[in-house]
Amino acid sequence: MTNKVGIYYAYWEHNWDADFVPYLSRVKRLGFDVLEINAGTLAGLSGSERKRLHAASAETGVPMSCCIGLPPSSDLASADPAVRRAGVAHLGRIADAMAGCGIDRLTGIIYSCWPATHEGRHESKQQALDWSVAAMKEAIRKAEDLGLTYNVEVVNRFEQFLLNTAEEAVAYVQRVQSPNLKILLDTYHMNIEEDSFEAAITTAGTLLGHLHTGESNRKPPGRGHIPWKEVGAALKKIGFNGWVVMEPFLLPGGEIGRDIRVNRELMPQVDLDAEARRACAFTREFLS
Amino acid sequence: MTNKVGIYYAYWEHNWDADFVPYLSRVKRLGFDVLEINAGTLAGLSGSERKRLHAASAETGVPMSCCIGLPPSSDLASADPAVRRAGVAHLGRIADAMAGCGIDRLTGIIYSCWPATHEGRHESKQQALDWSVAAMKEAIRKAEDLGLTYNVEVVNRFEQFLLNTAEEAVAYVQRVQSPNLKILLDTYHMNIEEDSFEAAITTAGTLLGHLHTGESNRKPPGRGHIPWKEVGAALKKIGFNGWVVMEPFLLPGGEIGRDIRVNRELMPQVDLDAEARRACAFTREFLS
Repeated sequence: MTNKVGIYYAYWEHNWDADFVPYLSRVKRLGFDVLEINAGTLAGLSGSERKRLHAASAETGVPMSCCIGLPPSSDLASADPAVRRAGVAHLGRIADAMAGCGIDRLTGIIYSCWPATHEGRHESKQQALDWSVAAMKEAIRKAEDLGLTYNVEVVNRFEQFLLNTAEEAVAYVQRVQSPNLKILLDTYHMNIEEDSFEAAITTAGTLLGHLHTGESNRKPPGRGHIPWKEVGAALKKIGFNGWVVMEPFLLPGGEIGRDIRVNRELMPQVDLDAEARRACAFTREFLS
Repeated sequence: MTNKVGIYYAYWEHNWDADFVPYLSRVKRLGFDVLEINAGTLAGLSGSERKRLHAASAETGVPMSCCIGLPPSSDLASADPAVRRAGVAHLGRIADAMAGCGIDRLTGIIYSCWPATHEGRHESKQQALDWSVAAMKEAIRKAEDLGLTYNVEVVNRFEQFLLNTAEEAVAYVQRVQSPNLKILLDTYHMNIEEDSFEAAITTAGTLLGHLHTGESNRKPPGRGHIPWKEVGAALKKIGFNGWVVMEPFLLPGGEIGRDIRVNRELMPQVDLDAEARRACAFTREFLS
């Protein structure tokens, strides 16, 4: 397989907004091929800031992917049509910013919002899904025009109630009917919801567009009990050639510690760079 | 090992309040030794209702344990001293009700509240722990007087922020310093927070008072990817002779579906009794 291996910048940060430019050379130095950044911050950058980021990505040869959990004010599954329209508009602004920086893939909770408000309940799930699918059919046109891929993220029950399994995501993507809409699976969430890692990856199959590698405890891959060999074998089985991006979170405090619920020092005294380098090599190993 | 095997009544229910009496003969018929009930409901029963429950437990020969996540109004870790006092008083009422029904063990989020309000953050965690320890030192006296054991439940980060690992629970229990305070580990939560099942069980060691067997996806044991043989071997290693109570949740809807975040039909068309019987036999197998 020739999967590009990456890491999410938030591993090093306490708050979501950050300057992504220094991370391009940093992650390259640690052995990674790609960097994942936050689409919300990207959409808020000025034209000159985007040019600087685009140039740095080209110069270092490190491509980027974007991730976002849409805020409740942009919830594509909201009961309020104005909020759903705001969500479609927000995705449009993100798409423009991505295209301007040479970024071709968006991932995350782009079909609803995060952190979840959980006003939605099982009783209203079908209605919320219907609203989300209709809004996504509209939003995905911009991705088609610009040649971007959007990947809907399957997450655990505590973070969202609409898509908790690969099976649910396949049904969602099939309803939207666009070649530009795919699925993001994350081993952290799969560990909580899926019956089996192998079955979930096989279920997503050719619709799998992106993979997040979260350890069972959200430490870097190799520090918990995710069955990495099983994951690697399943990816091979479906011929997955997308990016494999780790999303570890170790640092309590700040917006990120709060939203990810990092309630303790997960690896006290860790050397973050050395640990990322080890996890990158570990990832290439289980993918090989 | 001679662990008694049980199940939580809520597996069959949509709402927390229920008549526990019929469950005593039902779980016995399905192969279980013990029944776990909800302490909040028990505390609200009249004297005659308690007598009826006590008599049914004696008649069937099925002892009971009690479980509760204290409501926010009884949060032992609250910043409001009146709320902490209300929590100690609520635990006292529960203890009296338990003693009146011949129940000797209480388990759950009895050191704070559930579903978590998450007003508490990492920054205020030490203070919240201090308040909780002080309140528990007071509450545990009643358990000592009545010969009850209280077991603090270690849960995942989305449900509480104070005790997410066996290591944190050991530190908590050691601070309270009562032989009547022990630890409840739950394989469902361990799967999300602990580096290793074996290490967590060993860390709790002789302080482990109760075990909940939650499957990775909250289906009955054997329907997910918890390493049950590893769990069984670790329990043997520490000589655990407490109760092993499964806490599966399959049914969406109602208070229970909402609080447990059962966002989908986890096993459509399942025969709940037949599945419980299978899971009971499965449990005795991995404990043997």
